[in-house]
Amino acid sequence: MIIVLKPKATKKQVDHVLARIKELGLKPMVSKGTERTIIGVIGPEDTLRAQPLEVLPGVEKVMPVLKPFRLVSREFKPEPTVIDIHGVKVGGRRIAVIAGPCSVENEVMLLDTARQVKRGGALLLRGGAYKPRTSPYSFQGLRETGLRHLHEASERTGLPVVTELVDTRDVEAVARYADVIQIGARNMQNFELLKEVGQTQKPVLLKRGLSSTITEFLLAAEYILSQGNFNVMLCERGIRTFETHTRFTLDLSAIPVIKKLSHLPVIIDPSHGTGLWEYVPAMAKAAVAAGADGLIIEVHPNPEAAMSDGPQSLLPKTFAALMHDLKKVALAVGRTI
Amino acid sequence: MIIVLKPKATKKQVDHVLARIKELGLKPMVSKGTERTIIGVIGPEDTLRAQPLEVLPGVEKVMPVLKPFRLVSREFKPEPTVIDIHGVKVGGRRIAVIAGPCSVENEVMLLDTARQVKRGGALLLRGGAYKPRTSPYSFQGLRETGLRHLHEASERTGLPVVTELVDTRDVEAVARYADVIQIGARNMQNFELLKEVGQTQKPVLLKRGLSSTITEFLLAAEYILSQGNFNVMLCERGIRTFETHTRFTLDLSAIPVIKKLSHLPVIIDPSHGTGLWEYVPAMAKAAVAAGADGLIIEVHPNPEAAMSDGPQSLLPKTFAALMHDLKKVALAVGRTI
Amino acid sequence: MIIVLKPKATKKQVDHVLARIKELGLKPMVSKGTERTIIGVIGPEDTLRAQPLEVLPGVEKVMPVLKPFRLVSREFKPEPTVIDIHGVKVGGRRIAVIAGPCSVENEVMLLDTARQVKRGGALLLRGGAYKPRTSPYSFQGLRETGLRHLHEASERTGLPVVTELVDTRDVEAVARYADVIQIGARNMQNFELLKEVGQTQKPVLLKRGLSSTITEFLLAAEYILSQGNFNVMLCERGIRTFETHTRFTLDLSAIPVIKKLSHLPVIIDPSHGTGLWEYVPAMAKAAVAAGADGLIIEVHPNPEAAMSDGPQSLLPKTFAALMHDLKKVALAVGRTI
Amino acid sequence: MIIVLKPKATKKQVDHVLARIKELGLKPMVSKGTERTIIGVIGPEDTLRAQPLEVLPGVEKVMPVLKPFRLVSREFKPEPTVIDIHGVKVGGRRIAVIAGPCSVENEVMLLDTARQVKRGGALLLRGGAYKPRTSPYSFQGLRETGLRHLHEASERTGLPVVTELVDTRDVEAVARYADVIQIGARNMQNFELLKEVGQTQKPVLLKRGLSSTITEFLLAAEYILSQGNFNVMLCERGIRTFETHTRFTLDLSAIPVIKKLSHLPVIIDPSHGTGLWEYVPAMAKAAVAAGADGLIIEVHPNPEAAMSDGPQSLLPKTFAALMHDLKKVALAVGRTI
Repeated sequence: MIIVLKPKATKKQVDHVLARIKELGLKPMVSKGTERTIIGVIGPEDTLRAQPLEVLPGVEKVMPVLKPFRLVSREFKPEPTVIDIHGVKVGGRRIAVIAGPCSVENEVMLLDTARQVKRGGALLLRGGAYKPRTSPYSFQGLRETGLRHLHEASERTGLPVVTELVDTRDVEAVARYADVIQIGARNMQNFELLKEVGQTQKPVLLKRGLSSTITEFLLAAEYILSQGNFNVMLCERGIRTFETHTRFTLDLSAIPVIKKLSHLPVIIDPSHGTGLWEYVPAMAKAAVAAGADGLIIEVHPNPEAAMSDGPQSLLPKTFAALMHDLKKVALAVGRTI
Repeated sequence: MIIVLKPKATKKQVDHVLARIKELGLKPMVSKGTERTIIGVIGPEDTLRAQPLEVLPGVEKVMPVLKPFRLVSREFKPEPTVIDIHGVKVGGRRIAVIAGPCSVENEVMLLDTARQVKRGGALLLRGGAYKPRTSPYSFQGLRETGLRHLHEASERTGLPVVTELVDTRDVEAVARYADVIQIGARNMQNFELLKEVGQTQKPVLLKRGLSSTITEFLLAAEYILSQGNFNVMLCERGIRTFETHTRFTLDLSAIPVIKKLSHLPVIIDPSHGTGLWEYVPAMAKAAVAAGADGLIIEVHPNPEAAMSDGPQSLLPKTFAALMHDLKKVALAVGRTI
Repeated sequence: MIIVLKPKATKKQVDHVLARIKELGLKPMVSKGTERTIIGVIGPEDTLRAQPLEVLPGVEKVMPVLKPFRLVSREFKPEPTVIDIHGVKVGGRRIAVIAGPCSVENEVMLLDTARQVKRGGALLLRGGAYKPRTSPYSFQGLRETGLRHLHEASERTGLPVVTELVDTRDVEAVARYADVIQIGARNMQNFELLKEVGQTQKPVLLKRGLSSTITEFLLAAEYILSQGNFNVMLCERGIRTFETHTRFTLDLSAIPVIKKLSHLPVIIDPSHGTGLWEYVPAMAKAAVAAGADGLIIEVHPNPEAAMSDGPQSLLPKTFAALMHDLKKVALAVGRTI
Repeated sequence: MIIVLKPKATKKQVDHVLARIKELGLKPMVSKGTERTIIGVIGPEDTLRAQPLEVLPGVEKVMPVLKPFRLVSREFKPEPTVIDIHGVKVGGRRIAVIAGPCSVENEVMLLDTARQVKRGGALLLRGGAYKPRTSPYSFQGLRETGLRHLHEASERTGLPVVTELVDTRDVEAVARYADVIQIGARNMQNFELLKEVGQTQKPVLLKRGLSSTITEFLLAAEYILSQGNFNVMLCERGIRTFETHTRFTLDLSAIPVIKKLSHLPVIIDPSHGTGLWEYVPAMAKAAVAAGADGLIIEVHPNPEAAMSDGPQSLLPKTFAALMHDLKKVALAVGRTI
């Protein structure tokens, strides 16, 4: 931690800052520059981080030196984490594609979609049973019935299932039926939910919040790891910007940035990231080229009748064609799909 | 709903769109322009909103004509809503100031702060018992003990209490002790939580999400109203932008915009909105001048020892001085405080 | 300047960094922490700022201690700057209101508007002769003819004139006719233009870029001051965010932030900042309450026929009513208008 | 153009809107819905776009149906534009890589870099002679001397040269020495500059502004085309968001969006887009996979001594290795490099 003092900080103010640091059991080192005095503080930065040193008289600014996350960091664990979901490995050489409808609408459409995405090359099935919808008047999901349909489709196709959890009261139900628990973008900082999934050992697909910095995203993952669950996949799904041609702005630079900072696998969601099916293939290929460990793609057998996210869903045949193209891109960057 | 067709849409495609609209029990009106054919659809727009018409072949874009919210709108209820919190009215001529510490740290500091903010002119007491913190290593709040301290401070000072709810499992506990339930920015789209507070009759202080549009904000309120609870206050607390001199960018233009669209009272939080106590007075005065119905301000007897948000907390004497200034601004715009 | 080394930086890498700093005539101070070694550098930070120290092997990050601007800063000049425009003082106790049409459309409408805004209480007249328009097919301004109309209206009403400069080739013409040269938001980082107006002694109204940080805004002003022209007014006119109910998001917190960092006067533009005349009064009052030194407001005698920015222009009578209200808010914060 | 009326618009108001439309020589079509009356207007939308219909009494909102740009659009020219720069084709099957230093620092370093990037596979040389720098105290470029060095390096290596123009007064000089004129992000809406380059026949590399929407970007290009110069390349170089791990957020979804809307080639700048050389390879590969027609990459023989943008510059050998990888990705998507 570096504390920069104001140009006119008095001796009394400096002494008060030094006293405060020592009270916390830390060691200050004073350095007088030509324009400012700065104090470097040696010792565990977490102790200091909790202190509002900015409000001490004479202090101009406080600059943390260390990163605020630990368990998710490359420094804590240099080698990449590989998560095993009933035999499907995420984080290794093979890129894992998760596909399926936005919402589970009924048993028949789900099973049909599951079979088609499996044929196309998907390794996991997605489908929402609990749906967080912007409007109270939109379809809210089949809830527990949806979970059962997912479980059924999984049994029939052998594809492990990813589904979203939106309420701490449903942790048990979702954990019973799902193979991967998704925490959606709107719940990335629902810390009670993060603590709950941290106490299961289920793999978690954690989506980045619409306006979350990468640091906040990694701290949200840290909540899960700090409860003992290290099976976390980080999913970039578009951030909110001023651009309106796309639903969100898919931040693919999050891939190399997270890979540098963390050992956790990175998944990209080009469906939500763009909001329009026509843009999904370009962004899926880009994600693979940039080093993503997986993709999550919305596929619907009849998008024009979809109960949610129709505009961004691929037809099964478009998905299959995309998978064919993705194989070539994956090979070009030394991966398989 | 207006459907704009592509320049080269075929007759077959147009017919398919028309058939689809009629299937839904609505009435299409075709209008051929010089460059595009457009279809206006007459009938309840909610029916259409759920349909992904963008994916129909030949469709270029779909433009909704109506606003997606109902119960929160001025059209539904033209006169402003006034909420009564044990005699404190929010939404009328008098501007309500809510003040207190970020977190309830212990019984003594809370009661001390409560007495001081009351003396300064606050009408309600704020204090967090359940704290949503970015890092798992930060102070997470006293939880139920904090609620009891709040209740105690309320009994002693007569100030009704505002406190945050972060988990559906705590609705009952919070509703028992609090007079106003706060839904924080990070939970603005925690729809299960919104539904739960919608089923109480407690006044709700709903904070705008960091990256929520005003439309999404009003739809979040609509969740609460649609469950039967009309006692909702809308709180602007800063949105996320690229600027870093302030913690967030306080969007005061949300005041006239919301006042035009909705009948609900608007509260401004200059403490979170700026993140630095030095900027709070200017923004509090601006909020009153712009027409806010209330303010929520963080006050701490010793900010340099605060367990959270120290940098943005006012000392009780600074708060009292600000209240003195705010009275003058309120009078200048025909209000009292 | 603080240089943070990577946890595994080798002795050779550290020595290379130290050698580099000494080469530049500066003094490094090494401090070994529990997790990181940091190097504080003493000496003129400008020398270092130009050096890409981030690329030296073993360096994790570089943190500047000092602010990058000098002449615009409060440290350079603690007392506020007051600019004298033919007797109209900007930056003192009296708040200066600049009003007039977006574009100079013709001589008659300009003179008519000038008279009406003067009657309403404006101290300066605005009007665009050179118009930077998003589309090449929009009205581009009357150019030199417009300048002459402005000069004429100024002569007749006694109001000094503010008008925009968009091209280095027009500096002389604009400087001849205008009393204040406006640099628009889209040209805030047109550095050649900044240098040119820096070489005149004309007062400059510098608008903040749509996506400029306050630091970049102050550095743009620094360009002008560093050429010898200290007569700069800083104008906040809304920044670009995701919100669409307003044309931009007017960042009123820029007022206290700039007042803390700089001695230059701050002007607020609620017309561009909101994009809709209905929101202008609320934001104008808020700006005055927050400490603005001036306002710039678009007024048009017949907004529905305006050649640009009609939706955000006030009618003269609405402007006069607003001025009446602003006087009361100004008094409430110890100013006049 | 669709005009939506307020629910309580009076007959007189509706008649006034209709009269206004007819006055403009256009044909209104009225359609009464269950909640709103809407008016569709048939005829050239440009006429209407200039009219501030939003201010007419009784009007709730105005929704344009057509896109505001013409010449840059796919509808105007369905086949992709291929630009020929002394034999180097941009916009065809082969992806063109532009490489070189941020600034021309001296003759020797430039020639050295030019030779190395040519060896690596670059088809064009970049280098800044006129440098738009955020601070007036940063290196401002060698200006005309820099142009001569560029011309010399071009003669010796055979690589055509791309360099930035920042002032209308330098158009002739830059056009004399450069093969491609770059308009930088900060000048994307410097409309006088756009008009000037529109009057040359030189190829133009137009960079997207930091906070420009794609619509505004295309309108900036429209300025150039509307002057008669169709040789425009559109360069995405990162937009401004709240994320700070990268200098900007590289918006790769701009590739498929622009490809859908326009016939102009798209170039990606991963150097400015990320701000850190370590992230350049991932984003360069992603850009190629997403369908970019070219890349512009900063290369410096000794980044730690670079006079600008050192942190984001690749070493020549890193560039060569990247080109090797890019060839494979290009092949995977049916292109060459």
